Amino acid sequence: MREAFSFELIATDGAARRGEVVTLHGTVQTPAFMPVGTQATVKGLMPDDVRATGAEIVLGNTYHLMLRPGAERIAALGGLHKFMNWPLPILTDSGGFQVMSLSDLRRLDERGVTFRSHLDGAMVALSPERAIEIQTLLGADISMQLDECLKLPAGREEIARAMQLSLRWAERSRRSFESHAREGYALFGIVQGGDDLGLRAESARELTGMNFQGYAIGGLAVGEPQEMMLKIVAEIAPMLPEGRPRYLMGVGTPHDLLEAVHRGIDMFDCVLPTRNGRHGMAFTRFGPINLANARHADDPRPLDEQSTHPATHKYSRAYLHHLTKANEMLGAVLLSSINLAYYQTLMAGMREAIAAGRFAEFKAVSEAGWAQGDLRPL
Amino acid sequence: MREAFSFELIATDGAARRGEVVTLHGTVQTPAFMPVGTQATVKGLMPDDVRATGAEIVLGNTYHLMLRPGAERIAALGGLHKFMNWPLPILTDSGGFQVMSLSDLRRLDERGVTFRSHLDGAMVALSPERAIEIQTLLGADISMQLDECLKLPAGREEIARAMQLSLRWAERSRRSFESHAREGYALFGIVQGGDDLGLRAESARELTGMNFQGYAIGGLAVGEPQEMMLKIVAEIAPMLPEGRPRYLMGVGTPHDLLEAVHRGIDMFDCVLPTRNGRHGMAFTRFGPINLANARHADDPRPLDEQSTHPATHKYSRAYLHHLTKANEMLGAVLLSSINLAYYQTLMAGMREAIAAGRFAEFKAVSEAGWAQGDLRPL
Repeated sequence: MREAFSFELIATDGAARRGEVVTLHGTVQTPAFMPVGTQATVKGLMPDDVRATGAEIVLGNTYHLMLRPGAERIAALGGLHKFMNWPLPILTDSGGFQVMSLSDLRRLDERGVTFRSHLDGAMVALSPERAIEIQTLLGADISMQLDECLKLPAGREEIARAMQLSLRWAERSRRSFESHAREGYALFGIVQGGDDLGLRAESARELTGMNFQGYAIGGLAVGEPQEMMLKIVAEIAPMLPEGRPRYLMGVGTPHDLLEAVHRGIDMFDCVLPTRNGRHGMAFTRFGPINLANARHADDPRPLDEQSTHPATHKYSRAYLHHLTKANEMLGAVLLSSINLAYYQTLMAGMREAIAAGRFAEFKAVSEAGWAQGDLRPL
Repeated sequence: MREAFSFELIATDGAARRGEVVTLHGTVQTPAFMPVGTQATVKGLMPDDVRATGAEIVLGNTYHLMLRPGAERIAALGGLHKFMNWPLPILTDSGGFQVMSLSDLRRLDERGVTFRSHLDGAMVALSPERAIEIQTLLGADISMQLDECLKLPAGREEIARAMQLSLRWAERSRRSFESHAREGYALFGIVQGGDDLGLRAESARELTGMNFQGYAIGGLAVGEPQEMMLKIVAEIAPMLPEGRPRYLMGVGTPHDLLEAVHRGIDMFDCVLPTRNGRHGMAFTRFGPINLANARHADDPRPLDEQSTHPATHKYSRAYLHHLTKANEMLGAVLLSSINLAYYQTLMAGMREAIAAGRFAEFKAVSEAGWAQGDLRPL
């Protein structure tokens, strides 16, 4: 018999947690980073390349996929895993982020949100129930409730209203998800409440009462200082049930990941490694490196000779510089792969350190590397 | 001891030839198709992906590489093979094609050609000697002489002038190449003469007297009808030394390749499989398929279930359609790979058929497949 969705907490080190999320499509070691595959593809990379970076789960976007190619179409084609040739776990967001990012193109009320499609101007409706239906059609291992995500800063009244709405949508999402009765699949609730700790705490408490299989902290990394984000994470993470995974949505830089794991987060997603890779930036043990910089033009060294990832140790900086300057597709492909591999190496390092009870040491060493920077003599 | 450059003719079937080109970086089975890696990359593909399509040799462009990143720079970094992580044979063109394609940006006289760089407007000179020097710096297994390529149609006098100039440049190229005394590396001469069979024959005769290690037919597929190109190939190929490889530059469609092999050609290069792949077109056993067409949107079938190439049988038409419509990089990557794999499968089929003495049958079956087309019922 197939195992149901589960989370096991394997070890802790301070607030940092080492765990395992089991889904029907495979197991995800946590803390985990999920590459973003917005339109049913992690941009530029074949699924085998994504796996080779160490990724065990990817994220798909409900909003983008419902517009194109359409959730019913993907379902008819056998679901998102089959459609994009990714046999491992998939988490889908709910469209709540687009409630914020496309705020000029949408109308929102108690029932849900109506978008004017950025593709063809058609009106598309998303309700908590429809968001669940879409994610069910896609076959996501982990679905997210529909929520209202706000840009920060925002007024307290507005934040409270959006948080309360998100709670009502959480309950509707949960009921809708249960009506589909999909054994082995999970639904996560999303803590909102902007930068107000009281509202965040209320949201966390109410959601916990609804008994989700996992909990996300949403509406962060939307313009607020890192310090504020980490303060909220530090306050809210311990309020969430210990035996359920905790997912910090849309975060972040390597430093964000390290600090958030330090405060008890288990899962992340972010476009940074792929988006910045497409723009000539590499994430490394010695901090970010801008390959467009002329100092790399004659540099025969790979980005990191100690890396086990082929793209990271096989290609010279000179070559990556050339591809970047020549705007060659392969530059975007290689740097996306290099960055995802670095993120996965960082996560693996954290997991190992937590299990060994030396997360603080790993954190200090990582930070020292980033602080040292890449300007070593040739 | 390393073997010197050599060509062995293994079998013939009518005018079609099955052979083997041996270079210091490996052996190339002929008839062979060379993917184009203009700027030290076959666009969008990692070298391992290019190899996985079956390619045994790629082409690099002297003109593009001399402008960026520069031939001296590539030499200092260990040569083009190392720079682009392609350990197998490389052929480089000489810049002669850009004499034509960039005719608005260049000045030409007996000594050579001066280009205004399309990148930064700087003046860059190319002579027969400098073209050889650059290709030597790049470390090309096969270098090409500098020639003057003309657009067709052109007047006979103009064609004769360019052909004669190309012959004088051939001689200068040969002397320059020999002065570098690179054991195991080869230089090919290029037959010019436009659409004039008499001039073509004169060019072939004169070049043969100079004793190159291989012979190209250049200045075709530049606007003339296919029939004219094939007529010239049929006339000129038999005039070239039997024991040397024959390379038809810049050609072509699958049908062009089949017809040219039928007339005695051994080597080809063309941007079609990668360029058209970037624009949503797939080459298949059943002819070209435009993946942007809405008829593919719900089609779960791969492009060719019988293909052994992963990208060709693992991804549905619906997915390739989606990637194409969404302008996703992975669409360009997959279709480039799919097209190169089809080209290599076609070449492998031709090689096998020639060796078995049934090239005519293979040709008829291939043409019947293309004629049948892809509009089979779902």
